[in-house]
Amino acid sequence: MNIGIDLMGGDYAPRAELEGILLALRELDNDTQVFLFGNQEFAKRESKDFFEEVLSYSNVRFINCPDIVEMSESPIKALQNKPKSSLNLGFQYLAGNKIDVFSGVGNTGAMLVGAMYSVKTIEGIIRPTISSVLPKPNGKTGIILDVGINPDCRQDVLFQFGLLGSIYMKTVHQTENPKVALLNIGEEKEKGNLVTQAAYTLMENTKKFNFVGNLEGYDLFSDKADVVVCDGFTGNIVLKTAEGIFKLIKQRKLNDDYFNTYDYEQYGGTPILGVSKPVLVGHGISSPLAIKSMIMQSKIIVENDLINKIKSKLNN
Amino acid sequence: MNIGIDLMGGDYAPRAELEGILLALRELDNDTQVFLFGNQEFAKRESKDFFEEVLSYSNVRFINCPDIVEMSESPIKALQNKPKSSLNLGFQYLAGNKIDVFSGVGNTGAMLVGAMYSVKTIEGIIRPTISSVLPKPNGKTGIILDVGINPDCRQDVLFQFGLLGSIYMKTVHQTENPKVALLNIGEEKEKGNLVTQAAYTLMENTKKFNFVGNLEGYDLFSDKADVVVCDGFTGNIVLKTAEGIFKLIKQRKLNDDYFNTYDYEQYGGTPILGVSKPVLVGHGISSPLAIKSMIMQSKIIVENDLINKIKSKLNN
Repeated sequence: MNIGIDLMGGDYAPRAELEGILLALRELDNDTQVFLFGNQEFAKRESKDFFEEVLSYSNVRFINCPDIVEMSESPIKALQNKPKSSLNLGFQYLAGNKIDVFSGVGNTGAMLVGAMYSVKTIEGIIRPTISSVLPKPNGKTGIILDVGINPDCRQDVLFQFGLLGSIYMKTVHQTENPKVALLNIGEEKEKGNLVTQAAYTLMENTKKFNFVGNLEGYDLFSDKADVVVCDGFTGNIVLKTAEGIFKLIKQRKLNDDYFNTYDYEQYGGTPILGVSKPVLVGHGISSPLAIKSMIMQSKIIVENDLINKIKSKLNN
Repeated sequence: MNIGIDLMGGDYAPRAELEGILLALRELDNDTQVFLFGNQEFAKRESKDFFEEVLSYSNVRFINCPDIVEMSESPIKALQNKPKSSLNLGFQYLAGNKIDVFSGVGNTGAMLVGAMYSVKTIEGIIRPTISSVLPKPNGKTGIILDVGINPDCRQDVLFQFGLLGSIYMKTVHQTENPKVALLNIGEEKEKGNLVTQAAYTLMENTKKFNFVGNLEGYDLFSDKADVVVCDGFTGNIVLKTAEGIFKLIKQRKLNDDYFNTYDYEQYGGTPILGVSKPVLVGHGISSPLAIKSMIMQSKIIVENDLINKIKSKLNN
């Protein structure tokens, strides 16, 4: 398996990436090749020690990317204007099957656009989506999607999110028959805004996933659902509200095992669901541990053949 | 001043109402008349002791309402079919200026519909709204609106929510020049769904209220805004998510002064903003203390002439 990583994204690039890759390399077997996409001069200047240590591994390949996207540039415009950037070359390798998965902690919008222009969406996908992890007090894990890249969604898009989330939970988290719920303002079918009312009608009789009905905000962290479906506007605001409260819990020095698990470092990255090859994006402030988690997760996604499972279930 | 209360709403009617009214009567002066709307037989049967004690106050008037809305009936249909219910007679007294404010802890939808059919909306109001309190760690109080009665909102409706919230915070909470923010998925103007993008454009240059820009979920409980504007779908889900986490905090026996203030009993009720007379609704599970808070709040709203302040600012 060939795993590709962008060294140039994120707030602490390339040092956090290189340190995280080192953590991962200690656990990966030698058959897993790691492809690094970055600017050699920059990597040497900013993080010579880690860079040289990473390159000393026999299963590491470094792809030098001469074009550097400056902080002041729009990362999306740079996809067009800087063909030899780490993002462009990474997606080029992915599209050309030289790597099996590409991940980075740069700008999410740029990763999404890069994926859509290079490897494209899976046939039948209306909008690709990204999810976020919902850790439960009982130790289980759920997901919520979309969490920001699709602020306006039609009902058929929400329906697909339910399907994508269900396949993801089954394939990557080994959840049997994942419970899919629609985030809404009441439990009854007729509750909601126009789009969720219409989405409920599409979902209630489907055989494509296990729809369990509407879920209210109270129950987001309960065991009532494994997959919570919403538009990216609602999902983004709900997640950030929860993060804001968790931050207050920490600031107020309340120590608790459960609330301490709300740690993005454990989860690392999240796949862009619906594109035709595995692409993962991580938080811009990713630490080395988060980078390592993202690499390990990208390996699981390839091993479990997530993309082909989505392809086969989408059109049946 | 004449304050009207529905005795028949809520899960613990009429006992919680009567006990709460007793708590309020001990603090109200004799010039404040309290009008109770309820079924005499029911009140005597369910809560004879409190009922007789309340009626012993010289500033209490009891209006017997023969029609009783059963649990199995739609409260909204009952507005038409049971003209002598407590809700109908309460609104009739309000419309006829026999009382200055009417409040109840029954079904919110029924209170809204009752208000709209009896006292109507203020001229120029597109959609009435209800808000909820946001207590801050620094001891201040903000509000978020809408929180559920308007799941789909156009941009001009969101703009009015900003204005209504601003007038409410200034008039009732004495907040100088309230900071009004739009709940959104990023701080930049161009972020959001189609409606919040359009609402931002309407708000950014207004002189009607102090618009401070977009607010992200992280900052809901911060001091960045006094009034947080959103559609009722988002507001309802965000509030219930927060309530769900606060409940988890309690379940996990984390004791903290700030999180303990998330106690609806303190706030009691919330006005339906945009109708032409003061109407307050409270939580169906309201305790006597919550009922008392709602009565004291209804007094403040009348004393500060909230309705006329809305009327004068709406059309200028």
